[in-house]
Amino acid sequence: MRNFIFSIPTTAYFGKGQIKVLGQTIKAEGGSKVLLTYGGGSIKQNGIYDTILEQLNTAGLAYVELSGIQPNPRIESVEQGIKLYRDNNCDFILAVGGGSTLDACKAIAAGVMYAGPVNDLFVDASGLSSRIIAAAPLATILTMAGTGSELDMGAVITVGEDHKKKVLLHPLVNPRFSILDPEYTYTVPEHHTMAGVADILCHLMEQYFTPDVAAKVQDRMNEGVMKVVLEEAPKLLANPQDYDARANIMWASSMALAGFQFLLGKPGFAFPLHGMGHELSSQYDMTHGVTLALLTPAWMRYTMQAAPQHLPVFARFARNVMEIREEDDAKAAEAGIKALEAFYATIKMPLNLREAGVKQEDLDGMAAKAVENGKLGCLALLGKDEALQIMRMAF
Amino acid sequence: MRNFIFSIPTTAYFGKGQIKVLGQTIKAEGGSKVLLTYGGGSIKQNGIYDTILEQLNTAGLAYVELSGIQPNPRIESVEQGIKLYRDNNCDFILAVGGGSTLDACKAIAAGVMYAGPVNDLFVDASGLSSRIIAAAPLATILTMAGTGSELDMGAVITVGEDHKKKVLLHPLVNPRFSILDPEYTYTVPEHHTMAGVADILCHLMEQYFTPDVAAKVQDRMNEGVMKVVLEEAPKLLANPQDYDARANIMWASSMALAGFQFLLGKPGFAFPLHGMGHELSSQYDMTHGVTLALLTPAWMRYTMQAAPQHLPVFARFARNVMEIREEDDAKAAEAGIKALEAFYATIKMPLNLREAGVKQEDLDGMAAKAVENGKLGCLALLGKDEALQIMRMAF
Repeated sequence: MRNFIFSIPTTAYFGKGQIKVLGQTIKAEGGSKVLLTYGGGSIKQNGIYDTILEQLNTAGLAYVELSGIQPNPRIESVEQGIKLYRDNNCDFILAVGGGSTLDACKAIAAGVMYAGPVNDLFVDASGLSSRIIAAAPLATILTMAGTGSELDMGAVITVGEDHKKKVLLHPLVNPRFSILDPEYTYTVPEHHTMAGVADILCHLMEQYFTPDVAAKVQDRMNEGVMKVVLEEAPKLLANPQDYDARANIMWASSMALAGFQFLLGKPGFAFPLHGMGHELSSQYDMTHGVTLALLTPAWMRYTMQAAPQHLPVFARFARNVMEIREEDDAKAAEAGIKALEAFYATIKMPLNLREAGVKQEDLDGMAAKAVENGKLGCLALLGKDEALQIMRMAF
Repeated sequence: MRNFIFSIPTTAYFGKGQIKVLGQTIKAEGGSKVLLTYGGGSIKQNGIYDTILEQLNTAGLAYVELSGIQPNPRIESVEQGIKLYRDNNCDFILAVGGGSTLDACKAIAAGVMYAGPVNDLFVDASGLSSRIIAAAPLATILTMAGTGSELDMGAVITVGEDHKKKVLLHPLVNPRFSILDPEYTYTVPEHHTMAGVADILCHLMEQYFTPDVAAKVQDRMNEGVMKVVLEEAPKLLANPQDYDARANIMWASSMALAGFQFLLGKPGFAFPLHGMGHELSSQYDMTHGVTLALLTPAWMRYTMQAAPQHLPVFARFARNVMEIREEDDAKAAEAGIKALEAFYATIKMPLNLREAGVKQEDLDGMAAKAVENGKLGCLALLGKDEALQIMRMAF
């Protein structure tokens, strides 16, 4: 096990009705004028919006609103938020929504404290967004489980005409607190609920499939969360208002990325599936979680062949997570992948890129863009040719 | 799943040589004059003491020392520390040692900010130490894995001529940061290493064996850590300088109680095994972890009989943690207990109370004292008769 620093600065208020602490907790964190952001306005239909205003008003907090933050949030939304925050002398940001709104607000939080362009604030050669030296305080109210943004230090922002996804990563943008009410996810459509499930599972796998350095506590805890995701997702398909299933999926989302706790002490902060998946989202505006489900089995098979020394990690996944009883590592690993494919089919993910509407002639360009900032991965390093091979296997 | 608040305010610096951050981090936390506490002085033999002084001196930090904090720390040591802190105008506490030193320092941290007697600061009817409204900043350097004090909000202090163990519990006494260097535990004698293992396992079980409310993420993560403890402890018996095994046991210790994360959303903050075990420690000055290993199998068997509606939780433990393949819940649970007993034998815990030197005529008095502040447990409520029955079963 390698050295690491463990820190989860976010407090989570988890469960039914926890929004009751919103006003007082913003005040306790020093907020007086809030930039309130949300997405398409569904929170006005389900009553969350009214409850938030009641909380802010009762606590004597002023606010300005930024609505309409889109999925795969763009840097222009971030810039708009920064201007609004500054023009109105805000001192706190409240993000209400799924990962897109939360991510945009993390970039706003860092951006309002930085004199230069937002574009400076993405991950640089240090592995972090090292130009961030301060951030406005941020709280979140989660309405869709999946991205883990509610308890982590990351954000993904879309930039430029070619929809490039850029990553912002810094402990200062961790939310001060997040309100996680599983009931707020009851109305998330099935497709987006299951894409969230695929996203959570991929966050866990991206931290699991790294060189084995005997970080057993981290890996075993990770296995436990993966098993919960596999067990609970079908319950949500059967009954979207199963509170305990919603609660476990939501908490799995948060635990998956809280302090990147399952990667601590391990080499390889690489997330190659996210690297490739972002290109599918950019090109086709495809839901993030779906892109990950599409690529994962192919990536696993490719990696086992290209880097057979890491086969035991895939066999361990098969045995400990997918309950495969098979002595031979290669056979166990392949059976594990088949079981994972069966799970993706259960949660109604498309079977392959073709079925998802991807055009074969686009693969080459996407593979090139996926690696334009450097090779991906930590088990097998993926350049353009390797990324293309994986996309072809997933086609 | 019930509602909960998740918060882990402690930052952990984990790994070889992490003491290098000590001086600068105390300064960053606002410390200038440090109350440095430790136990019997082993840190002077293994070089840790010299490294600490070098760190403090290089950072320009003044310090006063309180040494000689004993296992099962007494309230008199706490009072001595409070006086020393106040007399020397300290503004920071650094605890170096195992759970005893850390626990004493948590009580000192709360005590220096409280005008009345320390005795006021133990858990009251609120379930917390509600009189604590401030605490001095505390950092820890762990030299023995087990109690989890390095990342939690609890402390156990021995009070009075009858050695009563009293619990202090408040988020304000969480360490600001803890330095966790597995190499510092290389020289811990086998018996104490294994008692620490039994303590960690019991912390995990006390959070696992509660009414089932479908808090699956918490339970599955807990199962993962339990499995690591079972797998790694025998490696330490074979080779006390197995770094990865030391690291995993140490991180398991910290994760087990960090924010009581495996109990969040579950009913039953009860810790009945600790309640009974503390009486064995008081009466015989027996190592804490040993008392827990002695009582756990008997408590499990008693509870399964007295509260058969909770049998599935014990069967789940047997299957998911002890790898028992058995369909019938009662048979699985009993096989799980037998496997646990075999593990305790492997790590050289005494087989029963008699072998551990307990006298039969003392059982009645210990059972009475164990419940004098109220019944214990959350699956089956234990009064004096029930505690006595469990102790007899463990005899």
